[in-house]
Amino acid sequence: MNKRMNLLMFSGDYDKAMAGLILANTARDINVDVTMFFAFWGLFLLRDPEKMTLEDKTIYEKLMTVITPKGPEALPLSKMNFSGLGKWMLEEMMEDQGAPQLIHFLKGARKKNIKFYACKLSVEIMGFKAEEFLPEVEIIDAQAYLKDALDSDMQLFI
Amino acid sequence: MNKRMNLLMFSGDYDKAMAGLILANTARDINVDVTMFFAFWGLFLLRDPEKMTLEDKTIYEKLMTVITPKGPEALPLSKMNFSGLGKWMLEEMMEDQGAPQLIHFLKGARKKNIKFYACKLSVEIMGFKAEEFLPEVEIIDAQAYLKDALDSDMQLFI
Amino acid sequence: MNKRMNLLMFSGDYDKAMAGLILANTARDINVDVTMFFAFWGLFLLRDPEKMTLEDKTIYEKLMTVITPKGPEALPLSKMNFSGLGKWMLEEMMEDQGAPQLIHFLKGARKKNIKFYACKLSVEIMGFKAEEFLPEVEIIDAQAYLKDALDSDMQLFI
Repeated sequence: MNKRMNLLMFSGDYDKAMAGLILANTARDINVDVTMFFAFWGLFLLRDPEKMTLEDKTIYEKLMTVITPKGPEALPLSKMNFSGLGKWMLEEMMEDQGAPQLIHFLKGARKKNIKFYACKLSVEIMGFKAEEFLPEVEIIDAQAYLKDALDSDMQLFI
Repeated sequence: MNKRMNLLMFSGDYDKAMAGLILANTARDINVDVTMFFAFWGLFLLRDPEKMTLEDKTIYEKLMTVITPKGPEALPLSKMNFSGLGKWMLEEMMEDQGAPQLIHFLKGARKKNIKFYACKLSVEIMGFKAEEFLPEVEIIDAQAYLKDALDSDMQLFI
Repeated sequence: MNKRMNLLMFSGDYDKAMAGLILANTARDINVDVTMFFAFWGLFLLRDPEKMTLEDKTIYEKLMTVITPKGPEALPLSKMNFSGLGKWMLEEMMEDQGAPQLIHFLKGARKKNIKFYACKLSVEIMGFKAEEFLPEVEIIDAQAYLKDALDSDMQLFI
């Protein structure tokens, strides 16, 4: 039987998203099953920048849609972001090393049969619509997450 | 035999406390045993706002008592807190969805036979007294936490 | 067979480094095997303040070497750091309680046969050299980390 890894992606930071996606891709390379469950700020990583909508949203939901990072490339660093300067420098350093950018790790993960789940309660509270997310994303509740996590060989809260 | 979940609550952020308590409540709903071990900033969630005391405390301990969030409702967001504006907006959005507030998830957890432990070393360093916490809270050391965590089916650092 | 604990040290915060090292030391005291894998900001904890070098580094790598915390004592708090004032106060409070400082927990961990791994990709991106780290540190890739983590009884992302 395969090993299984379950990641709860909570933070919505560029660097932590990177960490989670590198682990997810690497796990698939050694045939480990991977579930990524995105909650709260983690949902920002799943947004398709092309598919933002303001329809049928309250004023708060519109604000949440507009003032938050639209898609993976817009996420800030958890540290030393310096209004984007630190992040820009880190991206340059990654390019110097020939390391893939966040968007490539995300693209890799989407091709590697990783399960992408969005937290139902978080989606409702923030007022996001299912069609604003990447097409792979399935919306599930905390109970479904827990059952998956409890049957996995490792779980991380990122 | 029941499954067991162990959460190390470190951060003291409103949103992460919410995440931990939602997981804890949901786990109990499917009959999973739950331990929550609160350390460092996580202790702020366990303080009873009515029971603050300054007696027998050093000047640093008095400061720590007074300048830190007194109880669950006073915790800030880990992101986009905007001096409380972001948190206020999030709470409004939760109310719009009929989602329970943090205090209700905490109340639920207290009724559901979840073990609440406070980290002995953190309590000593911050100078809190046992009577400043909710009555369910038991103070244990890192070794007791580890034994519980190692025997659990999943562990998260929140 | 021994129990095993695997910690992914990501944050580079003083308080979280403390939490990780206390858990690591405590685990060894009860004969649990411990792996600590340091990635991204977590690498700052492994730097030997005496061994900083700027040779053979790009301008970004030099900046990264100079503007980031050099060694454990220079790490900031994740919260209430107040430009170092909060951290100073916390250290005073720890001294009042006779609690060891971060550097002592690190020294303890280094003597207790804990495995210290640095993330290869993080080291390359940040441009650190192997000789800038403590001598115990071994550089491994994400795949080696995952295999260790998946075979452990608990894993935390700190």
